[in-house]
Amino acid sequence: MAFLLNAWYVAAFAREVRADAPFSRTLLGRPVVLYRDAEQRAVALDDRCAHRFAPLSRGRIVNGVLECPYHGLRFNESGQCVRNPHGDGRVPAGAKVRAYPSLERYGAIWFWPGDPARADAALLPSFPFVDPAANVTHDGYLHTRAHYQLSADNLLDLSHFQFLHPDTLGSEAIARGDVQSGNLDDIVWVRRSTYDEALQPFVAQGFGIPPGTRVDRWMDVCWTPPGLLSIVVGVTAAGMPRVAGLIAPSAHWLTPETASTTHYFFAFGLPKEMGDAARELVRYAVEGLMKPFECEDLPMLEAQQKNLGDSDFWAMQPALLPIDAGAIRARRVMERLIAAEQGAASVPARTIAITPVVDTSQAVA
Amino acid sequence: MAFLLNAWYVAAFAREVRADAPFSRTLLGRPVVLYRDAEQRAVALDDRCAHRFAPLSRGRIVNGVLECPYHGLRFNESGQCVRNPHGDGRVPAGAKVRAYPSLERYGAIWFWPGDPARADAALLPSFPFVDPAANVTHDGYLHTRAHYQLSADNLLDLSHFQFLHPDTLGSEAIARGDVQSGNLDDIVWVRRSTYDEALQPFVAQGFGIPPGTRVDRWMDVCWTPPGLLSIVVGVTAAGMPRVAGLIAPSAHWLTPETASTTHYFFAFGLPKEMGDAARELVRYAVEGLMKPFECEDLPMLEAQQKNLGDSDFWAMQPALLPIDAGAIRARRVMERLIAAEQGAASVPARTIAITPVVDTSQAVA
Amino acid sequence: MAFLLNAWYVAAFAREVRADAPFSRTLLGRPVVLYRDAEQRAVALDDRCAHRFAPLSRGRIVNGVLECPYHGLRFNESGQCVRNPHGDGRVPAGAKVRAYPSLERYGAIWFWPGDPARADAALLPSFPFVDPAANVTHDGYLHTRAHYQLSADNLLDLSHFQFLHPDTLGSEAIARGDVQSGNLDDIVWVRRSTYDEALQPFVAQGFGIPPGTRVDRWMDVCWTPPGLLSIVVGVTAAGMPRVAGLIAPSAHWLTPETASTTHYFFAFGLPKEMGDAARELVRYAVEGLMKPFECEDLPMLEAQQKNLGDSDFWAMQPALLPIDAGAIRARRVMERLIAAEQGAASVPARTIAITPVVDTSQAVA
Ligand code: FES
Ligand code: FES
Ligand code: FES
Repeated sequence: MAFLLNAWYVAAFAREVRADAPFSRTLLGRPVVLYRDAEQRAVALDDRCAHRFAPLSRGRIVNGVLECPYHGLRFNESGQCVRNPHGDGRVPAGAKVRAYPSLERYGAIWFWPGDPARADAALLPSFPFVDPAANVTHDGYLHTRAHYQLSADNLLDLSHFQFLHPDTLGSEAIARGDVQSGNLDDIVWVRRSTYDEALQPFVAQGFGIPPGTRVDRWMDVCWTPPGLLSIVVGVTAAGMPRVAGLIAPSAHWLTPETASTTHYFFAFGLPKEMGDAARELVRYAVEGLMKPFECEDLPMLEAQQKNLGDSDFWAMQPALLPIDAGAIRARRVMERLIAAEQGAASVPARTIAITPVVDTSQAVA
Repeated sequence: MAFLLNAWYVAAFAREVRADAPFSRTLLGRPVVLYRDAEQRAVALDDRCAHRFAPLSRGRIVNGVLECPYHGLRFNESGQCVRNPHGDGRVPAGAKVRAYPSLERYGAIWFWPGDPARADAALLPSFPFVDPAANVTHDGYLHTRAHYQLSADNLLDLSHFQFLHPDTLGSEAIARGDVQSGNLDDIVWVRRSTYDEALQPFVAQGFGIPPGTRVDRWMDVCWTPPGLLSIVVGVTAAGMPRVAGLIAPSAHWLTPETASTTHYFFAFGLPKEMGDAARELVRYAVEGLMKPFECEDLPMLEAQQKNLGDSDFWAMQPALLPIDAGAIRARRVMERLIAAEQGAASVPARTIAITPVVDTSQAVA
Repeated sequence: MAFLLNAWYVAAFAREVRADAPFSRTLLGRPVVLYRDAEQRAVALDDRCAHRFAPLSRGRIVNGVLECPYHGLRFNESGQCVRNPHGDGRVPAGAKVRAYPSLERYGAIWFWPGDPARADAALLPSFPFVDPAANVTHDGYLHTRAHYQLSADNLLDLSHFQFLHPDTLGSEAIARGDVQSGNLDDIVWVRRSTYDEALQPFVAQGFGIPPGTRVDRWMDVCWTPPGLLSIVVGVTAAGMPRVAGLIAPSAHWLTPETASTTHYFFAFGLPKEMGDAARELVRYAVEGLMKPFECEDLPMLEAQQKNLGDSDFWAMQPALLPIDAGAIRARRVMERLIAAEQGAASVPARTIAITPVVDTSQAVA
């Protein structure tokens, strides 16, 4: 299926994009070069020189414009060639590479692969807890050899904690817990609660909970197209009200690299007022999650992708369970948005067939 | 060309399939998971969870059923989901993975990729010399990057011993020897005799023949669809009747992994009454053959496949020699069986064109 | 685009092709085996046995004919099977592999992939400075993961010296210099002159010029289809006539391996009369160029190819600059020759569209 083009995607963490050296990443199947101009504004261009397709990312930044490493043409932030060093120096009219609208927010550089006229910063969802103005943050990146929607499934259905991450994130209490999901227009939420749970040491320690304490845990996931999630995990002593507990919010941003690989950016943030404790906790969370993410989630996602191959997800006739409700809602939203963008008259018929299943899920919730 | 589906194929050696951990292998292009249930019966399922395509082979076996590693659904020996650990525990009707008929015989687990109703143990050809009830056996496995029919060509035409394996299996006598071949319905046999031959040390020692002894050697190959061969090699002192000689029988089973790669299973067996000598001889044979098979046959088969590419075998217009008669007979049988299975009205016309060549070969025999 | 078939291509350096062991190389997408027969003449055959597609290059040369490693058929210099070692020894009429016209000249073995009747040694362009009869030569080979025409672009437009090889071959003077190009029928020439240049130590030392000396440098490139170039670099003290300078001629031969990879053969030669100095200089040139070629040109060419993908060059709408004039002329010649060979009625329309650009370039020159 095609990518949704008129949307904001994370291209890189802000710290990856520099004024002294360009940076290259494949995004939605296109090679993109990122750098900062003389005003430190992030620039995103096609990483393919207008002259002979050299990767501009191997060139250098001179006075805020990007110089091609092959024959030295220079391109500015709108992709226009602004210097031809050879002969009479004339610049051919067509010497231009595609520039993408971009902006910097929440510690990330965002880019808009669709119609530039529709790129509106107001369309960016809010991730206030990783706004570096008010928070200390720590972030992690994982390259995932799977379609981004398989990654979204993973994050929207945390029931897998119990089976895939039994030693770090999961526990037997999860399957016994309850789960609700719903839509707010294009936004999908899933709320999962567990009761009287014995946390694994990694999570308990993160929340400062003594070993052996019984707790209630909630995990609230919120998904916004095209693959921008927040996850808030909270813990209280078992039976206590939520207000008595602690929460840990995190952002999870999925950007397709290709049709079968995904850039997974994630970040934790806590208020600056918490001082060193915040700094330590966000680092603890990111570093601790790297192992289950890399050693358990990534191989699973890659194996799913391998089993999926070039098939359409629905053509594989996946069994649908109540735990899938949120993930299926998100898939439906994406299918609808992509169909609309591509000018299809209506939502594909197949999404109708799964309606009863999602109803079942609501009943469970 | 498509695979023949209604046939028994070796999926694994019996020792590879266990009750405590699942085992995965790609067979005829499909990922298959193998394990033993609580009664130690081998089970063969699609290695792709009905829920979200996770590889079941990364899960665990719990009370004889297989638990998916991702969200913990459990599947029994007929592929039916028998447990959903989440929420109300209901199991959706469609939560089922494909199960393949399987059986254990001759030290191997066999599976039937076609219509389960037609899977009949009586259709399995006989390999009594590797029946572990009465024999000591030793087996070897090689992954071959070539179409299984190129491997069958190799085994059905041992004239290559002289050129490809001159230091171990071949000798100049082979090209001077004679060869006969024929069909018994779908079974193809090739009988090759050499006379007054000086064996290479590897073969001589295996038969306990003093260095320098002149011998007569015969090599009888029998092929059954889809790629199940027995090879009986016998040796006598030159000029002596066969009854005065010794024989070494072996089984060679070819299972397509994909259209261009093959699982090659082979085994030697000798009667238990022979005691330690048998044990030593079968090990000697398998271990000794590994080197020529791996270092001489495998690179050749892979190079043939590379030169063949995606082309049809006949489209390459191979020159046909008398030595090819058996291999061509086997190819014809497979073409006929596959065409019949696919509902083709008749054998493809191209096989008729090669008739004169095979006639030539019979004349030689 | 298809390859030009009726043309001489370099298959190997002469020293690579031997009478005691065959040599294999993929040329224009075909596996070719090269060896020398009993008269030391180079032979080029399809590296694919007529019997079962075994690579003949893994066989051995017996009395000047090539024996297949699998079943021992032998093939002579015209590709005809001349021996079947099995049974009655009859050789089937069709047992023949394709033989290519070949010849040895300029230290290389040349082969003609097209119609053998049209293979004429007189069509080979002249590279007298690497004729080993009169010269000492040194040669180098590089495998290039790019279409051969991208390599030709590279050699026909040495403006890239300044940007891609600033520390070895380039200098700021290059962009200030002037450049002319033109056609002589199918031959394309580009002449580039720089003035009052400070050479990098690698070039200065090669020409025996003291550090800091200001020089004039000229670089004359001559391209002949399908990708046979000579480059003559000359240097004088700044302002002196060319006749007072020194020149270094080199040959650069591009042979497509596949549609996206190229064999790049190059060689320097100097007259034998120069004695040891010549020997040292040609070695200095080849060894010194290996580093910029391997570490700067090859990654660039590979990156261009990756950005080009399966697209047609013109479909990528490359910006055309005056520096491209020679390279575009060469592309036009190839397009015309290939179209003619394939029986196209006329030159494709798209080449007309670029006419104005090349006119611009002439104006610059
Ligand atoms: S490829 Fe960029 S300037 Fe030539
Ligand atoms: S993928 Fe197997 S239970 Fe979800
Ligand atoms: S493949 Fe060459 S002789 Fe058989």
